[in-house]
Amino acid sequence: MEAFTVENVPLIKAGDDIASIICQNADVMDNDIIIIASTIVSKAEGRMFRLEEIEASEEAARIAQKQQADPLFVQAVLDRSRDILLESPIFLVETNNGHVCIKAGIDASNVDRGFLVDLPADPDASAENIGQRIEDITGRKISVIITDTNGRAFKIGQTGVAVGLYRIHPIKDWKGEKDLFGNILQITEESIADEIAGTANLLMGEGGSGYPIVIIRGMELRSDDKASVKEMYRNSSQDIIRKGLCSLRHA
Amino acid sequence: MEAFTVENVPLIKAGDDIASIICQNADVMDNDIIIIASTIVSKAEGRMFRLEEIEASEEAARIAQKQQADPLFVQAVLDRSRDILLESPIFLVETNNGHVCIKAGIDASNVDRGFLVDLPADPDASAENIGQRIEDITGRKISVIITDTNGRAFKIGQTGVAVGLYRIHPIKDWKGEKDLFGNILQITEESIADEIAGTANLLMGEGGSGYPIVIIRGMELRSDDKASVKEMYRNSSQDIIRKGLCSLRHA
Repeated sequence: MEAFTVENVPLIKAGDDIASIICQNADVMDNDIIIIASTIVSKAEGRMFRLEEIEASEEAARIAQKQQADPLFVQAVLDRSRDILLESPIFLVETNNGHVCIKAGIDASNVDRGFLVDLPADPDASAENIGQRIEDITGRKISVIITDTNGRAFKIGQTGVAVGLYRIHPIKDWKGEKDLFGNILQITEESIADEIAGTANLLMGEGGSGYPIVIIRGMELRSDDKASVKEMYRNSSQDIIRKGLCSLRHA
Repeated sequence: MEAFTVENVPLIKAGDDIASIICQNADVMDNDIIIIASTIVSKAEGRMFRLEEIEASEEAARIAQKQQADPLFVQAVLDRSRDILLESPIFLVETNNGHVCIKAGIDASNVDRGFLVDLPADPDASAENIGQRIEDITGRKISVIITDTNGRAFKIGQTGVAVGLYRIHPIKDWKGEKDLFGNILQITEESIADEIAGTANLLMGEGGSGYPIVIIRGMELRSDDKASVKEMYRNSSQDIIRKGLCSLRHA
């Protein structure tokens, strides 16, 4: 397996064609997995916004006071969320798309000062648009993963995670396979999409270095059928950690 | 960056010299990151055990009844844990080394039937032993990461994670760095050790295929000073998810 950054990616602005930029700057091959930072996807889709455009509700004002945050920012998060898991000390929500993350993934990094950018509204659709256009241009069969970075339970630090994808299933199921000694495996579900997102994040860099597109080559993981990032979102009623956080909120 | 499996690794048994096996089967280079599945490290250290060797305490019997599990297995987990985060529906503990995982990482996969294997008692020390020996044999400066697979909050599936390491810090700190527009970055800590463990896990395979050793080349991440996996374990008093689980336990 090899992983490399796509060079010469310009600063992305609204209306830019990310698929064409990739095809101009990389020699795409069959089975390539093309990993794209969500920030540039959102920028190309024109999803930058200013807090001044927002009006805060009473709920936003209440949460903002608890967090000592800007009510307009809180409202921006609420507008993009269908559930709140925690209001404080971290503002953890489930986005309208089903992704659990801090502040609905709204980011002020790598955006013009004064602007914010959020996650694509339907990241699978964004991945599909880019992926199909790359396939049309190149005639190659590829996969796309759109990524963000998230924190995690019990450990410091963020890792790259998949938030949208095209033609790659997020989970590889080892069910029924046997180990080296012929025993049925206990662990059966590997989150390959998040492992790939983490691999790409090692090369992307958070800082000014900015390599928002990475290609991974040498893995045969492309699916012929439709895939969705939602395949790895746990049903909230089965989620014990969520239950724990919920009990804190209502304590 | 490239990642590849070390071929011809035999079934590891107690007393085997993993460092020598790596040096015989791979051409190690400066700055290589050598990722090793914890199972084979534990096996080489002779950490296989049978439940029949254990005596169950009253606490183990109580928890086992709740879980409908074997009291001897529960006792094996308790013996390796310094805190229980949840007894059921998942048996989530903090190991004596500070790693939070299900069942203290005890595994029945890829072990002779009837035997179990646990995580190395001090995985940083295990990584250091292997790493220093590889450096002695080859004269190269390398890093080692020992891995396991863990589940995570809110999402289905397991990913590779670091449980012990040598000469690579688990967290890369972007603090003070500026983004493409000159703003100070909000996200400052990247868990490179877990991202590397995930990358390796993509190639290892859980099943009978069995590639327990992966080399990642082309990243300059080696540290000259001593590093520990404990640098990424969150202080439990600051851990809101842990607090939520604790409130469930005592509800």
